[in-house]
Amino acid sequence: MEFNIGLVGKGNVGTSFLQILNKKNPIIIDSFEYDIKVIGIFEYDGAIIDQNGIDLDNLLRLGKEFRSHENWKLGYRAIDYIDKINLNIMIETTPTMPQNGEPAISHILKALNNNIDVISSNKAPFYLEYEKIKKNAKDNNQLIRYEATVASCVPILSIKNNLQGNEIIGLSAILNGTSNYILSKMSDEGINFYQALEEAQNLGYAEADPNLDIKGYDAAGKLVILANELLDYNVTIRDVDIRGIENIDENDIELAKSNNQVIKHLSFAKNGRLFVKPQCVDKNSYFNVNGSLNVIELETKNTGNIVLSGRGAGGIEAASAIMNDLISILQERTKFS
Amino acid sequence: MEFNIGLVGKGNVGTSFLQILNKKNPIIIDSFEYDIKVIGIFEYDGAIIDQNGIDLDNLLRLGKEFRSHENWKLGYRAIDYIDKINLNIMIETTPTMPQNGEPAISHILKALNNNIDVISSNKAPFYLEYEKIKKNAKDNNQLIRYEATVASCVPILSIKNNLQGNEIIGLSAILNGTSNYILSKMSDEGINFYQALEEAQNLGYAEADPNLDIKGYDAAGKLVILANELLDYNVTIRDVDIRGIENIDENDIELAKSNNQVIKHLSFAKNGRLFVKPQCVDKNSYFNVNGSLNVIELETKNTGNIVLSGRGAGGIEAASAIMNDLISILQERTKFS
Repeated sequence: MEFNIGLVGKGNVGTSFLQILNKKNPIIIDSFEYDIKVIGIFEYDGAIIDQNGIDLDNLLRLGKEFRSHENWKLGYRAIDYIDKINLNIMIETTPTMPQNGEPAISHILKALNNNIDVISSNKAPFYLEYEKIKKNAKDNNQLIRYEATVASCVPILSIKNNLQGNEIIGLSAILNGTSNYILSKMSDEGINFYQALEEAQNLGYAEADPNLDIKGYDAAGKLVILANELLDYNVTIRDVDIRGIENIDENDIELAKSNNQVIKHLSFAKNGRLFVKPQCVDKNSYFNVNGSLNVIELETKNTGNIVLSGRGAGGIEAASAIMNDLISILQERTKFS
Repeated sequence: MEFNIGLVGKGNVGTSFLQILNKKNPIIIDSFEYDIKVIGIFEYDGAIIDQNGIDLDNLLRLGKEFRSHENWKLGYRAIDYIDKINLNIMIETTPTMPQNGEPAISHILKALNNNIDVISSNKAPFYLEYEKIKKNAKDNNQLIRYEATVASCVPILSIKNNLQGNEIIGLSAILNGTSNYILSKMSDEGINFYQALEEAQNLGYAEADPNLDIKGYDAAGKLVILANELLDYNVTIRDVDIRGIENIDENDIELAKSNNQVIKHLSFAKNGRLFVKPQCVDKNSYFNVNGSLNVIELETKNTGNIVLSGRGAGGIEAASAIMNDLISILQERTKFS
């Protein structure tokens, strides 16, 4: 069975996905007998389009010079062309725009309304317009997957399928690697917030404007997706009570230490309420992880807590989640064949 | 769509499963439109059989006096009757018999060869005769699930579906709650091995004969299942290098402590080799859990480690895994309808 794939956004995540696909495709074809072609790769200023399938070896060799590809069409924008090239699956990896989720929301809705299944690593559409996107998918009988939006390679959204015999009633999590790195550094090395932030920026963990991380907005967005997905909430980021870590000082860190605790930037959802805030946890808690690890604790009704942990960021990590979403969609779309 | 279910073994796990099913069945019928009937419940000395479906409220009220049920048939053994009562799915929850896996292996093979899908919480069949059972399932086009055999409610076997875009290359785990309880007690309270073992027995954690736990055989069995399932090995428990914790003394515990470490009973699979052995881990490692928690670390090729943790034992915990296996089979069996 043939599948035409379009990639929107050729940054770190998009490129990592093409690398994994290029390597895994022979195995996928062998095991599942799918015939996958990438026929469109879109950037903000143009696209590479080839209805016969873009040669990925060739493309990946070009690296950042991909605009020199012989099929590069300057000015071809995703929003104008995704419905015109006979796509089956669109993969949205444009950068997250927290204010309005664009252009990703428009890409996603256009795909769903034009007989195209969607995979996204861009989280803003799901914490801003979850209900609308889900309704569009349902009304059009299209599939939509977004495992990479929360905790990247950790399969925390799809795990719902594996817990259908259980009952998840709440969750607590560490969902932002930058704020976790800063708090770890402050605690381990006794440096202050601004020194730790500068280190994170020098290492490339934090953006030039790190407000999304340290003020908790990034974590809150992921919390919204988790709550909608695993707890059947119907919320947006406007429903989260968000507090950042920018006011944590050395005294707070020392006070926690004296109680054998550490301060972590935790996200919670329970009883319909959502919080992101700094919180003390025991030193030997599984929330006491360093660096960019994410941790998600699922509280169940009858079987205690089930905890998942792993790398929460990175191109290859997100691409690995996208790859699983892709296989899941291919399996779903071929199950009647 | 109608499904006739038979339960073999009405102990703690089997009874917990009936309780969950009785509570969840209305929801399952509503969401999935399955019509589930339990038509046979087998014990070693007889069975309750009702082709119209056993009233579970009524049955569960009888508690341990279930043999007083009006449909109790003395002497009706599973091995003679599972193929005669028109079953679609058999749930095997008899106690694990580590020597030969019987009567579970015979039950499972008989079901698979008679058009019956199988769910098992009994692990011996899978660490003794994995290949034979898998072959029988495949040859007969039957489904077989056994999530409850490893780490009970933690979905560590089915998570393979959620990591198809990734590549698992090794695993390390704590898989036995009793030996973990004993080591934790020795470390936390400075008592010796025999005192800790006695405490575990008094609390009902360890069996009267705790050798399966402390000598590592139980953990090794689970390790085999994990390795076959997640790493595509084809091994049995005879391929595991097993060392127990019975020779760990106070000096070992103190030595570990002086290095800021603790001794844990770990299971490993990597590069085709399998071990169960006591091992030092850092105090702040995620392997440093107390009591009956299980921890499984999956080593991936490109995305670091993904860790799962949760309760590894208990009737309701195993029943929750069985319930998920059941829903998964129902979904698979109805996907063409």
